[in-house]
Amino acid sequence: MTNVTSEIRSGTYFDSVVLMQLQKGILELDGVLDAGVMMGTQANKDVLKHSGLLPHSSETTVAEDLIISVKAESTSQASAALKHVDVLLNSRKSLTEDQEFRPRSLDMAVRTLPNTQWVIVSVPGRYAAEVAREALGFGKHVFLYSDNVSVQDEISLKKLAADKGLLVMGPDCGTAVINGIGLGFANQSKSGPIGIVAASGTGLQALTVTIDNLGSGITYAIGTGGRDLNNQIGGITSRQALDLLSRDTDTKVIILTSKPISSDAGLELMQLMYALEKPVVVNFLGYAPPAHRIGNVFFASTLRQTAELAMELCDKFDRSTILKADSKKEFASSQRYIRGLFSGGTLAYETLLVLRAFTKGIYSNIPIDASYKLDNSASSDEHTIIDMGEDEFTVGRLHPMIDSDLRLRRFQQEAADPETAVILLDVVLGYGSHPNPAAELAPIISEAKSLARRSGRYLEVVVLVVGTESDPQDVVAQTKILRQSGAHIETNADKAAIYVGNIIFRLNPSSKASLRPVILDKTRQSLAAINVGLESFYESLVRQGAEAIHVDWQPPAQGKENLMNLLAKMKG
Amino acid sequence: MTNVTSEIRSGTYFDSVVLMQLQKGILELDGVLDAGVMMGTQANKDVLKHSGLLPHSSETTVAEDLIISVKAESTSQASAALKHVDVLLNSRKSLTEDQEFRPRSLDMAVRTLPNTQWVIVSVPGRYAAEVAREALGFGKHVFLYSDNVSVQDEISLKKLAADKGLLVMGPDCGTAVINGIGLGFANQSKSGPIGIVAASGTGLQALTVTIDNLGSGITYAIGTGGRDLNNQIGGITSRQALDLLSRDTDTKVIILTSKPISSDAGLELMQLMYALEKPVVVNFLGYAPPAHRIGNVFFASTLRQTAELAMELCDKFDRSTILKADSKKEFASSQRYIRGLFSGGTLAYETLLVLRAFTKGIYSNIPIDASYKLDNSASSDEHTIIDMGEDEFTVGRLHPMIDSDLRLRRFQQEAADPETAVILLDVVLGYGSHPNPAAELAPIISEAKSLARRSGRYLEVVVLVVGTESDPQDVVAQTKILRQSGAHIETNADKAAIYVGNIIFRLNPSSKASLRPVILDKTRQSLAAINVGLESFYESLVRQGAEAIHVDWQPPAQGKENLMNLLAKMKG
Repeated sequence: MTNVTSEIRSGTYFDSVVLMQLQKGILELDGVLDAGVMMGTQANKDVLKHSGLLPHSSETTVAEDLIISVKAESTSQASAALKHVDVLLNSRKSLTEDQEFRPRSLDMAVRTLPNTQWVIVSVPGRYAAEVAREALGFGKHVFLYSDNVSVQDEISLKKLAADKGLLVMGPDCGTAVINGIGLGFANQSKSGPIGIVAASGTGLQALTVTIDNLGSGITYAIGTGGRDLNNQIGGITSRQALDLLSRDTDTKVIILTSKPISSDAGLELMQLMYALEKPVVVNFLGYAPPAHRIGNVFFASTLRQTAELAMELCDKFDRSTILKADSKKEFASSQRYIRGLFSGGTLAYETLLVLRAFTKGIYSNIPIDASYKLDNSASSDEHTIIDMGEDEFTVGRLHPMIDSDLRLRRFQQEAADPETAVILLDVVLGYGSHPNPAAELAPIISEAKSLARRSGRYLEVVVLVVGTESDPQDVVAQTKILRQSGAHIETNADKAAIYVGNIIFRLNPSSKASLRPVILDKTRQSLAAINVGLESFYESLVRQGAEAIHVDWQPPAQGKENLMNLLAKMKG
Repeated sequence: MTNVTSEIRSGTYFDSVVLMQLQKGILELDGVLDAGVMMGTQANKDVLKHSGLLPHSSETTVAEDLIISVKAESTSQASAALKHVDVLLNSRKSLTEDQEFRPRSLDMAVRTLPNTQWVIVSVPGRYAAEVAREALGFGKHVFLYSDNVSVQDEISLKKLAADKGLLVMGPDCGTAVINGIGLGFANQSKSGPIGIVAASGTGLQALTVTIDNLGSGITYAIGTGGRDLNNQIGGITSRQALDLLSRDTDTKVIILTSKPISSDAGLELMQLMYALEKPVVVNFLGYAPPAHRIGNVFFASTLRQTAELAMELCDKFDRSTILKADSKKEFASSQRYIRGLFSGGTLAYETLLVLRAFTKGIYSNIPIDASYKLDNSASSDEHTIIDMGEDEFTVGRLHPMIDSDLRLRRFQQEAADPETAVILLDVVLGYGSHPNPAAELAPIISEAKSLARRSGRYLEVVVLVVGTESDPQDVVAQTKILRQSGAHIETNADKAAIYVGNIIFRLNPSSKASLRPVILDKTRQSLAAINVGLESFYESLVRQGAEAIHVDWQPPAQGKENLMNLLAKMKG
């Protein structure tokens, strides 16, 4: 640590851009070899330490302390550089110099430029929620770039916004494109038929860039903040954004991307998406897709595939598979659940995987989530899928593909349960299997269906038939017998599961209230925004031709905790 | 339980088909309302109880005890039915009656039909491993239908088989198609250009059926047993089967499907697959695909999509993306690891997801698997990917998309590490980002590369550039400057990760020895097999035109535990 001289300024706040410029300014001074200008957080101190720039006296610094550290050819040059800091700070060219009037508060900015719809907030995390709350109070949408905002603040901000029909994108929202203008970090891309919702900043940027590079473009790109799809937040912003894009007539295809999500929030969003008439491409990072496609919802595994798929769907989208409610089937109010009785383990498991896209919590003897393992495979609980070919059922007896007895008894047991809405069975034909399964199944199916009818219920029976035309059982004849018994026939596990999933998700509607629609003013050419925080975001807005005003923000009470608390108390 | 009469026969063994036939025979007798004929396992007793057929005296029964229970209109009719059991048993028509000679042991069957290549084993689980071991001793491939076989037995059987260049399909292998003949449960399907490896019985059946229904067909369908891809087994049969299909000239496209697998076994298989010249479609149930496609390996999410994709690939397969080794880059032996320094969190996470297909264990501050969370994000360990835009790095300082300082320092630190082979960076252009990142990065990249060269190393630097032609930084110029510094440029995260993954997987080759190739005799028209266990499997073989012989198997020592142990001791 020879020739390193440092200074710590306590309780000093500077815009991060200012610090970066200061560091670069010091590096240009005579004899300076290296310099570090950083707020005194632990991460920053680690960085300074690695570069041999950490002052011994910095052990107790906190985020409000500014560390300036200079390594020079001589100690005197280092000291001279430090003494030059204030000159550099005062001489820096402000990006907002051309702004005629620099309001010092949001209140004043709103009064100066009353037609703004948006407030861009990028002040340090600990002040950000308060600024965002103020912006919502003025009836503005908020782009909340700041990170280090608590989950509690995020929830209360988003609930407040939703009540007012406003958007809060963020916290930690890196990017968005609204009415052709990029907010935060944003790429200049063509306008086109694709709308994006992203709980992922660079995910959104990579998508807009790939779509632009491939020759298409976007309507809106709406960031939500990386935590929006956590269980605690429940996807408030994502749900608002989906609704907005579904109503926007220019948007032909919707993309939804997110960092890893909670399965509950993902499920709720999917249930919303099925109701849309537009194709949606979903890319939840690290999520095992329930299928390639469910109704109008397509699952992609990488950002590139997501962009490519969305572009394909702009040109051709087969609407025939959009999920619809079938009101003709008169289920009783008690009927809510699926009971799946499988002879094929993989068919059962694929069914479980697909049904994740329709309901949470399916009990099974081979559950995806161990907390839904059936205590006793002999009796069902709510939604239940049983693999009757599992070892527990086959010790000392034949596989259910040969011996239907056990499955037929279980079928009758499930059919008699007033909570059962759908029974799903597989019939696997071929050598080694039962020579005529339809002959055994069909009478039991039609009897169960008429029994249900007499009790005022509608029992749906879905049979997944797996067989070729050359199989010894004659797949055509088997299918005909089963269909005549009143069963709905499918020939692929995913299709059968989607058919069943569509029924049970409509029998168990989400209890979530729908949100007040967000209206974005598209009539004006471009957006108008108030910027609070990083000046560079203001500059970007202006360069893109947006109307903008920058607030010369300073932390309340010079960022001093005790003074801030006192101020808060005085306010009420 | 009125009018229910039962009988328990201890220590009696019957083929399960016989029991099913007996139950059906009893049901046809006068006055009989219901009947249960089952070995006395707990699962079976649960079934009997549900049907009101469980005798009070059955509390202590075990798998070797036969329970016969009859419900009739009167007690006397129930008793009469029970008395008729032996008549039914003696009168049943054997499926193997037309077999001239019924050997009572495998040994005798081998001598009777010496040209058999296969032994089909479907005896009860507790006897199955011993029969399979005997078959391997005779140099036969084994189709092991039986379940309830221990993992230890599976490992020892598969290791023994691999040493001999033989296959053990199973235990719990439901199906296979070899030389046009279905084994176990199998569908009659057309022959065609697709070869299947499946750690999933009905998965394999559903695939062959879908392919047949879509008009194509298969070469081989090889079952492995559901546990083959567990860590303990390590995919021995799957690896043999992949090798076999890669050598088979009729197989144009390979499908690999499995129930949920361990990531280690999946990774080892993928590393094998990259070396094949054929396209492979992978469907690991419930597995989040690392990408849509990696080299010649394609990932599908449902059985139907798997079949459809395989058929497409028969017609058109773009060979240009097959992964190749690049021998021109002279890495030093110390160089093994990737270091990824990202400004974009989603780009970092997608990179982590894709790299799972190349290596296990990548340390990160945002790891997929929590056990690879870096203790200290400031220093790397083995393979490391850092998201430098995470909160820990941005408190009190600018995002790395604006402020490169921290990343440039870290770059130099990683470049100096003799274990670093590849450094991967993203450069995200656009509004709000650094106005000229290439100008800062390029000199540091070229300096690091020449420093490495002087130390006898080759340092690969890969830069993922995300930007449009309209972005303020001019993406073409930025790319040019970076390329001139010696960096390899990619524009999509998945492609960059695949490029890097291919390098690190070749620098860290698997220590697994390759297995002795399995040779299946394809010159004969059809296969010849010995059947030990369920007679119906013998019948299916004969009906398909295969040469087959059925062994009239009985459990050793009438299935009595103590006698069996004694026999085992006497054998040695």
